[in-house]
Amino acid sequence: MTGTSGERAREFMEAALALSETVRGSTSPNPPVGAVVVDREGRIVGRGATQPPPGPHAEVMALREAGDLARGATAFVTLEPCSHYGRTPPCTEALLAAGVSSVRFAVADPHPVAAGGGRVLAEAGVEVESGLLADEVASGPLGAWLHFARTGRPRVTWKYAASLDGRSAAADGSSRWISGPVSRAEVHAMRAGADAIVVGTGTVLADDPWLTVRDGRGEPAARQPLRVVVGTTGIPSGARVLDTAAETVHLRTRDPVEVVAALAERGVVDVLLEGGPTLAGAFVRAGRVDRLIGFVAPVLLGDGLAALGEAGVSTITEAHRWRVEGVTMSGDDVRIAAVPATGEEGS
Amino acid sequence: MTGTSGERAREFMEAALALSETVRGSTSPNPPVGAVVVDREGRIVGRGATQPPPGPHAEVMALREAGDLARGATAFVTLEPCSHYGRTPPCTEALLAAGVSSVRFAVADPHPVAAGGGRVLAEAGVEVESGLLADEVASGPLGAWLHFARTGRPRVTWKYAASLDGRSAAADGSSRWISGPVSRAEVHAMRAGADAIVVGTGTVLADDPWLTVRDGRGEPAARQPLRVVVGTTGIPSGARVLDTAAETVHLRTRDPVEVVAALAERGVVDVLLEGGPTLAGAFVRAGRVDRLIGFVAPVLLGDGLAALGEAGVSTITEAHRWRVEGVTMSGDDVRIAAVPATGEEGS
Repeated sequence: MTGTSGERAREFMEAALALSETVRGSTSPNPPVGAVVVDREGRIVGRGATQPPPGPHAEVMALREAGDLARGATAFVTLEPCSHYGRTPPCTEALLAAGVSSVRFAVADPHPVAAGGGRVLAEAGVEVESGLLADEVASGPLGAWLHFARTGRPRVTWKYAASLDGRSAAADGSSRWISGPVSRAEVHAMRAGADAIVVGTGTVLADDPWLTVRDGRGEPAARQPLRVVVGTTGIPSGARVLDTAAETVHLRTRDPVEVVAALAERGVVDVLLEGGPTLAGAFVRAGRVDRLIGFVAPVLLGDGLAALGEAGVSTITEAHRWRVEGVTMSGDDVRIAAVPATGEEGS
Repeated sequence: MTGTSGERAREFMEAALALSETVRGSTSPNPPVGAVVVDREGRIVGRGATQPPPGPHAEVMALREAGDLARGATAFVTLEPCSHYGRTPPCTEALLAAGVSSVRFAVADPHPVAAGGGRVLAEAGVEVESGLLADEVASGPLGAWLHFARTGRPRVTWKYAASLDGRSAAADGSSRWISGPVSRAEVHAMRAGADAIVVGTGTVLADDPWLTVRDGRGEPAARQPLRVVVGTTGIPSGARVLDTAAETVHLRTRDPVEVVAALAERGVVDVLLEGGPTLAGAFVRAGRVDRLIGFVAPVLLGDGLAALGEAGVSTITEAHRWRVEGVTMSGDDVRIAAVPATGEEGS
């Protein structure tokens, strides 16, 4: 593969990135990784993505497909191959055994234990390069996992839908539909990629939601994120979140720090906070929102439920400051993505 | 000018558009128009923009500069030249007297009385074309005037600054500065281009604002928009809006329909609504906001003053629906421009 043009290499890493997207939400606590094996003629001979634990990692899946064609080939992997024995043997061993001559990975493994796979490979005579598409991978499928690796906490994304004047429901509580179909479809995809969906008992009592992910035909998807209900109030026995469509856990606390710690212990890496304004306010106040995605619908209400409840701010200098990462149109809505302004997200 | 390439013609109309920008806010009730006269060799030999009433129109200013060089030249004008006697003689006469051989204008004059200038010129043997940069001109300097021409009402732009959660001040009323310096500079430019700035008596009592336009050194600009205070409460005699820096009118009504009608009678074409949430809510409810420009700062407050007050919406199906025209970053803030979703803006 020496001599592969930068453009071809980019295409191969994009293929690995696309593979990793397909397993998002199904691999935690392992990272959703993608890999392709490319032979000397520049043909992709193996494709793989991380399987649900305790299944194989992406490299092993791609090497299995490649078989003997992996000899002398180049592996493109979105994350540095692991070099330690965890649930599975180290991927470095599999790559060496398959006889690949070159490995390119996007993002270095930040873990003290697993890291060093690149060095192990290089010392065994494999040509190793890193950094290709690192930003795309780090801000995409591996974002939540890297956050966990840095902070020991799952990444919490607060998703909200509001009017231009910051209301998430009209004065009578009605909110169907503040945001448009494109935004609702994206929220659906966000749910499908999350490990857990968090709401408060207030939302369960008021809306009795299912909190399940459904496919295009409205049927429950095969894999469902954990349903997490937060609060000291009891959940009525007939509540929809207690059905058998997905697992549900009730955390009897109002403290977001305790909620996040409890989810970390369960191996939850990527959390979607969908609760009402009270719960969202508590999370913001506690510094436990690492990312916000707001769908601002082009409507004015002038009254009704505020999108965010009490968050510990009484004067403007105490305002929680964020940094806008991206603004796009989502159908007729404005989609705003932001992270806390103070240094690293969620730090 | 026959044979002028499309690209050159576009540059000349852009020059006329830029000239019209310079007089925005100083020409009402006349439209802010720009004109350039281009000789047969493609040189700009005259530039003009509409002077404050009862001064000359743009075409006359440009022809004056061109003098004898206007003979056989092409005039580029952002609006169809008028053909009627108003405060000034018709521009069509001036163009014919100067001997121009060709006239290109961007936007047709929608007035029943003034319109037809293009036809008058063509019948006199002048080559006439229209439509070049029509969208840019109509959505730019001529936007408010065209709105007035269509509806008989000044165009009302509601400008607001808010947090991501729709608050325009913290719980204690503090709001300095919710939005950043780039947004504040644009608000300043919006004020400079407006005919009138409207606030409620509540804002006067709470903030005691000057509502004057200041130049880069903080000095009051030579031309000041009309200051309009709306409401039945009296204005304290020492209030800053009563100083001599600009004219102030107190409209003793709370009805936006009456406010807009009173301003129309005064020849006000372009209104910037800067009042607090109560006044903004009343204008939205009355259908008297034709455009909104929101500066959404990347902060979360969770409490405080809502950006928009009661607007006659009690359930979601009654929501005021808008159409986003543009979303851009304004420094660290998100700038959202929108118009009512029902057909034409302000109709």
